[in-house]
Amino acid sequence: MVRILVINPNSTVEMTNNVKKVLDSCTPLDVELQYLSGPPNGPASIESVFDGILTASFVMRHFKQNPPQCDAFLVACYSDHPLVSALREAYKKPCLGIMQASIFAALSLGRKVAIVTTTKRYEPLLSAGVRAMGISDSVFAGVVSTGLTPLELESKPRTEVDALVQKSSRRAVQELGADVICLGCAGMAHMVEVVQQAVGPDVPVVEGAKAGVGMLTSLVQMSLFTSKVGAYQAIPF
Amino acid sequence: MVRILVINPNSTVEMTNNVKKVLDSCTPLDVELQYLSGPPNGPASIESVFDGILTASFVMRHFKQNPPQCDAFLVACYSDHPLVSALREAYKKPCLGIMQASIFAALSLGRKVAIVTTTKRYEPLLSAGVRAMGISDSVFAGVVSTGLTPLELESKPRTEVDALVQKSSRRAVQELGADVICLGCAGMAHMVEVVQQAVGPDVPVVEGAKAGVGMLTSLVQMSLFTSKVGAYQAIPF
Amino acid sequence: MVRILVINPNSTVEMTNNVKKVLDSCTPLDVELQYLSGPPNGPASIESVFDGILTASFVMRHFKQNPPQCDAFLVACYSDHPLVSALREAYKKPCLGIMQASIFAALSLGRKVAIVTTTKRYEPLLSAGVRAMGISDSVFAGVVSTGLTPLELESKPRTEVDALVQKSSRRAVQELGADVICLGCAGMAHMVEVVQQAVGPDVPVVEGAKAGVGMLTSLVQMSLFTSKVGAYQAIPF
Amino acid sequence: MVRILVINPNSTVEMTNNVKKVLDSCTPLDVELQYLSGPPNGPASIESVFDGILTASFVMRHFKQNPPQCDAFLVACYSDHPLVSALREAYKKPCLGIMQASIFAALSLGRKVAIVTTTKRYEPLLSAGVRAMGISDSVFAGVVSTGLTPLELESKPRTEVDALVQKSSRRAVQELGADVICLGCAGMAHMVEVVQQAVGPDVPVVEGAKAGVGMLTSLVQMSLFTSKVGAYQAIPF
Amino acid sequence: MVRILVINPNSTVEMTNNVKKVLDSCTPLDVELQYLSGPPNGPASIESVFDGILTASFVMRHFKQNPPQCDAFLVACYSDHPLVSALREAYKKPCLGIMQASIFAALSLGRKVAIVTTTKRYEPLLSAGVRAMGISDSVFAGVVSTGLTPLELESKPRTEVDALVQKSSRRAVQELGADVICLGCAGMAHMVEVVQQAVGPDVPVVEGAKAGVGMLTSLVQMSLFTSKVGAYQAIPF
Amino acid sequence: MVRILVINPNSTVEMTNNVKKVLDSCTPLDVELQYLSGPPNGPASIESVFDGILTASFVMRHFKQNPPQCDAFLVACYSDHPLVSALREAYKKPCLGIMQASIFAALSLGRKVAIVTTTKRYEPLLSAGVRAMGISDSVFAGVVSTGLTPLELESKPRTEVDALVQKSSRRAVQELGADVICLGCAGMAHMVEVVQQAVGPDVPVVEGAKAGVGMLTSLVQMSLFTSKVGAYQAIPF
Repeated sequence: MVRILVINPNSTVEMTNNVKKVLDSCTPLDVELQYLSGPPNGPASIESVFDGILTASFVMRHFKQNPPQCDAFLVACYSDHPLVSALREAYKKPCLGIMQASIFAALSLGRKVAIVTTTKRYEPLLSAGVRAMGISDSVFAGVVSTGLTPLELESKPRTEVDALVQKSSRRAVQELGADVICLGCAGMAHMVEVVQQAVGPDVPVVEGAKAGVGMLTSLVQMSLFTSKVGAYQAIPF
Repeated sequence: MVRILVINPNSTVEMTNNVKKVLDSCTPLDVELQYLSGPPNGPASIESVFDGILTASFVMRHFKQNPPQCDAFLVACYSDHPLVSALREAYKKPCLGIMQASIFAALSLGRKVAIVTTTKRYEPLLSAGVRAMGISDSVFAGVVSTGLTPLELESKPRTEVDALVQKSSRRAVQELGADVICLGCAGMAHMVEVVQQAVGPDVPVVEGAKAGVGMLTSLVQMSLFTSKVGAYQAIPF
Repeated sequence: MVRILVINPNSTVEMTNNVKKVLDSCTPLDVELQYLSGPPNGPASIESVFDGILTASFVMRHFKQNPPQCDAFLVACYSDHPLVSALREAYKKPCLGIMQASIFAALSLGRKVAIVTTTKRYEPLLSAGVRAMGISDSVFAGVVSTGLTPLELESKPRTEVDALVQKSSRRAVQELGADVICLGCAGMAHMVEVVQQAVGPDVPVVEGAKAGVGMLTSLVQMSLFTSKVGAYQAIPF
Repeated sequence: MVRILVINPNSTVEMTNNVKKVLDSCTPLDVELQYLSGPPNGPASIESVFDGILTASFVMRHFKQNPPQCDAFLVACYSDHPLVSALREAYKKPCLGIMQASIFAALSLGRKVAIVTTTKRYEPLLSAGVRAMGISDSVFAGVVSTGLTPLELESKPRTEVDALVQKSSRRAVQELGADVICLGCAGMAHMVEVVQQAVGPDVPVVEGAKAGVGMLTSLVQMSLFTSKVGAYQAIPF
Repeated sequence: MVRILVINPNSTVEMTNNVKKVLDSCTPLDVELQYLSGPPNGPASIESVFDGILTASFVMRHFKQNPPQCDAFLVACYSDHPLVSALREAYKKPCLGIMQASIFAALSLGRKVAIVTTTKRYEPLLSAGVRAMGISDSVFAGVVSTGLTPLELESKPRTEVDALVQKSSRRAVQELGADVICLGCAGMAHMVEVVQQAVGPDVPVVEGAKAGVGMLTSLVQMSLFTSKVGAYQAIPF
Repeated sequence: MVRILVINPNSTVEMTNNVKKVLDSCTPLDVELQYLSGPPNGPASIESVFDGILTASFVMRHFKQNPPQCDAFLVACYSDHPLVSALREAYKKPCLGIMQASIFAALSLGRKVAIVTTTKRYEPLLSAGVRAMGISDSVFAGVVSTGLTPLELESKPRTEVDALVQKSSRRAVQELGADVICLGCAGMAHMVEVVQQAVGPDVPVVEGAKAGVGMLTSLVQMSLFTSKVGAYQAIPF
């Protein structure tokens, strides 16, 4: 049995539940998923580097009190979230963010990956995040933002949200030349089919939480672990 | 049930069996592995671009006569083997080479990946292959060759082979600054522990066939498929 | 006398003749050109990586039976055709593809090179091919496709073809900022003037077959040869 | 008849004659070479960016008085010499430096090119020059300097010079992994065989002046010209 | 007291005075600025690489006769002007061009820098110049040209000039995604406010002459100097 | 008067005082420096990404209670410290880390910059940090670690520390080909002369805190500010 702890670092439990609903529908038999949301006094959604720092420090403090009982971590925030590095330093268990997982899956399916995301500020942040993974622009088409905040994905009328996400997805294919789409927010986890309709049956649409569960399951089954000789050397924790 | 066809494009059935032995020990319950070797009149091992072309055309001709009954393809030759692109063009089923799979797994575990491989000529070929995946030198430490041909991995005395592979692995860590090692030949699939001993318990050692089975299983379970709008558009086949 | 074997790897003899007509009009005195087409049962045009593999293996098999009597090879398919690497491995004689030759000539004349080609799928394939040559985006403006297949260049009405190629060429200059145009298909070898009219007298238009004959002639006259110590080490052939 | 003006921008006529001797031995029948040295009061060799500026302005002033009667220019200084850009701006005739010509030839023969040059300062200057051509480190192995100044190539004892150049060439192959060597100074034009002996018969050794004559001849025969719509737009001259 | 020599390499004294007026309004107390224009017989503005060479050689010749009495040099031509390298070779005093200074300031304020400049030819030249600084496209959004020559910035009606520069600046933000604007010509030194109005109060507008004075002052106060062990080794001057 | 708040995010007041001593000796007349250390219960030194997150969240919480009274921020931790981004999001005042400031100063003085730092793990972290600034490997020679932790810089005997830092600095010049050295830890702020002795009078040695004060002073004097339209859009704070 592989136990994966899915961490939604923000305080919006609905978002955690949204991811849970998506993952529960397809969790492999030998995998057990646990869920953790950020504390109630933390940010309701992660919309800046500062939110990332804050939620990372909250989660790490939580683990100091409550050591995690799992085999791997999945950080369910679509960003270059600093919690990923922090967990890799603190533990040897494999750890992925949903951004990283979605990019690896997407690069297995096409040659030009785009991310459809929320606010405009995420365009430079996610581009920098993908580049920090060592992925070059030769296979990365870029980021298209819908202009919706993460919370508006839930609060705005469904048809309006769907239309904006679909429009951005089509732009990614037609204007950026993308041949694979990554859903760039945990709050979009349930939107694979909505986007698939927009881009047609020949463009794969990758949801990062599912991709992360798959990849981490495989890493744990291979008994693999985070390297401890380079950037992720152990920290006193 | 996810059916993955593992293709060893060369004619050396021992190498296929070697991979099979490694994979059988850890195949997930819901995965069925099939195996295919290259035809007897093809190259016994793949040591050049020309061998890649030849074996790719053999395998594709075979599929024209014998349509594959599987959900995904794993090309078990550690190279930028042209069969990967050919299968992606001919089918919508996900397809990975063990080089690609190992790199994605390795990048989930560390920040500087090196490949330990066979002959010296594979140094430029694998470097170019990793670059063709869109992976930049910021996370790729390079390739170290042992000087052994793929067939010598089997024919030479075990202690000699082990010593050479261990020495190259240590060089990858100490001289190239790698924090993760990928085993750069299908014929090394059984050598994870040998290399682990050499580099110590803090450097993950990734075997590409296992990584490929894990990744393809996940892609199939997500109902994902090869993109058909960009480079891998369907071909009449 | 420098003998260059011009290889059109597909089976369309008209395309070979088209190239021949273009080259015969300007072959230097001390150069003798030989021509080889792909076998009749091979692909009529090369529209995928798979076509490349197939035609490369056909041509190599032909040479096994009929050793080439020449000083250099020119692969007259505008792509990162695997035959180029295969010939470099099998022989020490210089070998170029028309893509490589056209890019080197173009980079001698301007600072931002674009390729005008046939189908949309060639956009990612040629971009990757140019990048595989080690050419960075700082001097490569990109690829514009006309939407015509290689065979349609011949079968469609001349005025329609010309109009589409001219429109794409203008787009390359105006939208991509190119200052040199490469004709991205052997089937366009006769279209230098058509494109020149479209882009005006200040934008050089490079035809790869002619550029390749010139470059190979020079390499042979310098007694230069394919390196045999790196990626192109000799193969038993 | 193709008339190429070979410009040695420094004042050392012996260096011009050295290049002339090398080129005369192998000039194609339909090519006529003219020679121009820098003025006597200019630098005796080009050892800095400042020397490049000075000699470029001298040569351009000369042409203002004495319009060149040729079809193409070859700048016989192995550097990113500013005269190349200046001539491309002033004329439409093709223009190459021997650095550029040697790199294009070398990339036709191998996959990892190194330059063997004179003083240590040329290491960063030539690396930057190759990068300015748009050539990435994936195919460029780097620069090895002998420590000799251009003038010492002539003034020091032949055996000492040969030994130093041979040692640097071997280092380029063995330590940088180069599979092609470019001779990085016009004053080394006669040293192809010396270097060939050092690196063995499988490593091509490219001399830039010969490569430049070949490439320019081909460009002129194709009626190609410097682009006038981008960086090299015409200047009032 | 830090003495900075501001060099306008062209002969247009009005342009020097324009820069002077801008700098005088904000020179720190402990800084003394000196000014030098190019000689009357030199180019009135710098519109090509050739103009750069010519003006660099004029200025250097001037210094040979009249050794500069200053602590640092600022080359007030917005380009990769060769005088910057020449001065770094000839002296140990710090030297910056206004292009370099503006880019460093801009990268301190945002993550995507664009340059608004004069003629279209400067688009490739400045892109190459920024790349030669080692700045990658991840933080460089590109160059937008107004179509005005440097001299037309003065000679054309103020409202027309302002409108064109404002339009280009908005394009840089809206189309290239820039979050900082650099004024790409010494002749625009007085236009910070004009551009600020166009792009709004949240986009910083960097003027390179001021940025250069600030940066050089700081380098001198730290007793820093141009490196003499690499590319800028001392030349006999 | 320009007021710069120098933030040492760790709790070691001795380190803050060390930086203060260095800066006080050379603060320009019109600059007022304020100092802030991390809270006593925070990390004593910053040796991981996790330490960065923790100290950034501490400092930001402090500012929520005690709004800063300054014109600019200098983060005196030599790393890609997340506090830099957080402050840029929270405020419009210019903000630099000492890593960024030192790199910009160094690139003004040479063409190949190296960093000499503390522990080995900082090698990949600082390389990634410099790359995240958009600085390419063409001008970045790399990182050399002494093996000393930040605290050991103080606690170990002075001669031992000096010897290790000097040895690493010489290695940076001799083995990495650096022509400028950046001191890669706030705890090395007083070591400019020690390093200068090791590398000789022709290699500039850049101390980031001084460089940061100079650069921020200049940005404030130009009335420049952090961009608010891209990655650093305002956050509710």
